[in-house]
Amino acid sequence: MLRIPASSAITAFSAHSEPVAVVALGEAFECETQDCYAGQITSEAVLRPHIDMAHFNPATGPVFVEGVLAGDVIRVDIEAIDIGEAGIMALSPGLGVLGDRIAAADTRVVPIADGQAWVTPELPVPVAPMIGVLGVAPAGDPIGTSWPGTHGGNLDTRILRAGSALLLRAQHDGALVAVGDLHAVQGDGELGGTGVEIAGRVRLRVSAVGAEAYASELPAVVHEAGLSLLGSAATLDEAVRIAFAGAVDLVGGWRGLAWEDAYRATSLVARTEVSQLVNPLVTARVTIPRGWCPAALFEAPPAGAARG
Amino acid sequence: MLRIPASSAITAFSAHSEPVAVVALGEAFECETQDCYAGQITSEAVLRPHIDMAHFNPATGPVFVEGVLAGDVIRVDIEAIDIGEAGIMALSPGLGVLGDRIAAADTRVVPIADGQAWVTPELPVPVAPMIGVLGVAPAGDPIGTSWPGTHGGNLDTRILRAGSALLLRAQHDGALVAVGDLHAVQGDGELGGTGVEIAGRVRLRVSAVGAEAYASELPAVVHEAGLSLLGSAATLDEAVRIAFAGAVDLVGGWRGLAWEDAYRATSLVARTEVSQLVNPLVTARVTIPRGWCPAALFEAPPAGAARG
Repeated sequence: MLRIPASSAITAFSAHSEPVAVVALGEAFECETQDCYAGQITSEAVLRPHIDMAHFNPATGPVFVEGVLAGDVIRVDIEAIDIGEAGIMALSPGLGVLGDRIAAADTRVVPIADGQAWVTPELPVPVAPMIGVLGVAPAGDPIGTSWPGTHGGNLDTRILRAGSALLLRAQHDGALVAVGDLHAVQGDGELGGTGVEIAGRVRLRVSAVGAEAYASELPAVVHEAGLSLLGSAATLDEAVRIAFAGAVDLVGGWRGLAWEDAYRATSLVARTEVSQLVNPLVTARVTIPRGWCPAALFEAPPAGAARG
Repeated sequence: MLRIPASSAITAFSAHSEPVAVVALGEAFECETQDCYAGQITSEAVLRPHIDMAHFNPATGPVFVEGVLAGDVIRVDIEAIDIGEAGIMALSPGLGVLGDRIAAADTRVVPIADGQAWVTPELPVPVAPMIGVLGVAPAGDPIGTSWPGTHGGNLDTRILRAGSALLLRAQHDGALVAVGDLHAVQGDGELGGTGVEIAGRVRLRVSAVGAEAYASELPAVVHEAGLSLLGSAATLDEAVRIAFAGAVDLVGGWRGLAWEDAYRATSLVARTEVSQLVNPLVTARVTIPRGWCPAALFEAPPAGAARG
């Protein structure tokens, strides 16, 4: 299987980045990923303010997917996430939604053992590996990998885990997929400004999605509970509004409803959650329960040709 | 069992409201409730702009709970919710987060049958009865029943359902509990501005909670998945921040952690959801998973003396 090393990384999603690999639709491939600090925090002596932010949030790629044209909706299945042996939780003043209460920078190395992230030797948290950054090259100017948007990017959404798939609209031929910023575990909102930041390896597979199943411009996650549309904006109120508007349009389209009835029904069944509240734009998700979605979304797409 | 008729209702939580009943700690009682329109929408011919908003969101009560002193934390167990045979979904221009797209007022009567709310004859939604308004008299000025706050009120939180309990800090002796605004079903956020608004009957039981189990000033819901702190503010970003700050303090207190470690741990395990985005203040909830909470919170409190 194609494996792309963590050294092949970008810090901005851009149509101008040279692809580091070419894959076929349906072909699984692996990306090794650095942690969000690009490995600069090598011990608890290295504090977050010390690191070079020019290297922050590296994403492995971009990968050119043959057969994808600009405007196509792609589905990126997350087949596996393997994480390293230790992660980082580095606090510093201003970090997270209560960052004003942090007096001094303080780095914690968090060992991963027995399925737990050991925040302290007395404070284990079950691991739930997830992807922070997953996206495609945007139509316009390059977008730094710390930003979320309609291209995906730094979505920091805990349901981007093995077994889920991210739907994205390709904005260039070949899509130019990149992935990084794994977390051994992260809560909804990433409210403290950090998950357990960790290096690792991700196995992905890209396939095509028809407009009858997904006709939105927004990124969305297919997972066991349903389809979660991701809205990103300057405020959480606006991010929710964007994701909900997308959900109403999908429900109306799938069911052939008048907009007002789609609005009523979606208002009754939506689950509304916060993905992250700590990036340059914040991200909310509005989940349409599985029973309201086309069944085809929840079927694994056919595998493509395997390669060396 | 004590039953309070729906006619005994307030439209503001206030220490000046005369109690309509007195109950003991641990004593179950029933409140009949009007729908949020106080029954004014009697058919699809009555549009939302026609109703008298002076009667909007009536809450049955207030009920004086003997043995509760100002400053005590009370637990209001929701033992049962019975709903009527039909609810209302009345759209009007400006209603809900996409209210700018509603061209004209349009009332829909939604029959309840076979466990479904029939938005149209072809569009059933499974019922999930919940309480919109539940609160106590506030310390300061009266607060209209359309507002949420630290006194509870118009929280519009779908997990306020049978089997859950709301924790609230009493701000006056006797607490002065009132309840209303049932929904046959409502999604997270109440994003369309309305659930299936319906009259019904609620059985409640109030007990006392020790500070070792719950020491926050915020309302919180005890339910199967954990403890959900409810923050209400002008923006969702601020509402999340308030609820998360409360959660960090609780986790730190329960576990005896330094604030920074409570911040880390809560950032990893919190579930962050939107209760409502359509009231004068919006409400978010941050859920601490059950395994992180004192087990005593999930034990049914002892029953008090039954009465005629």
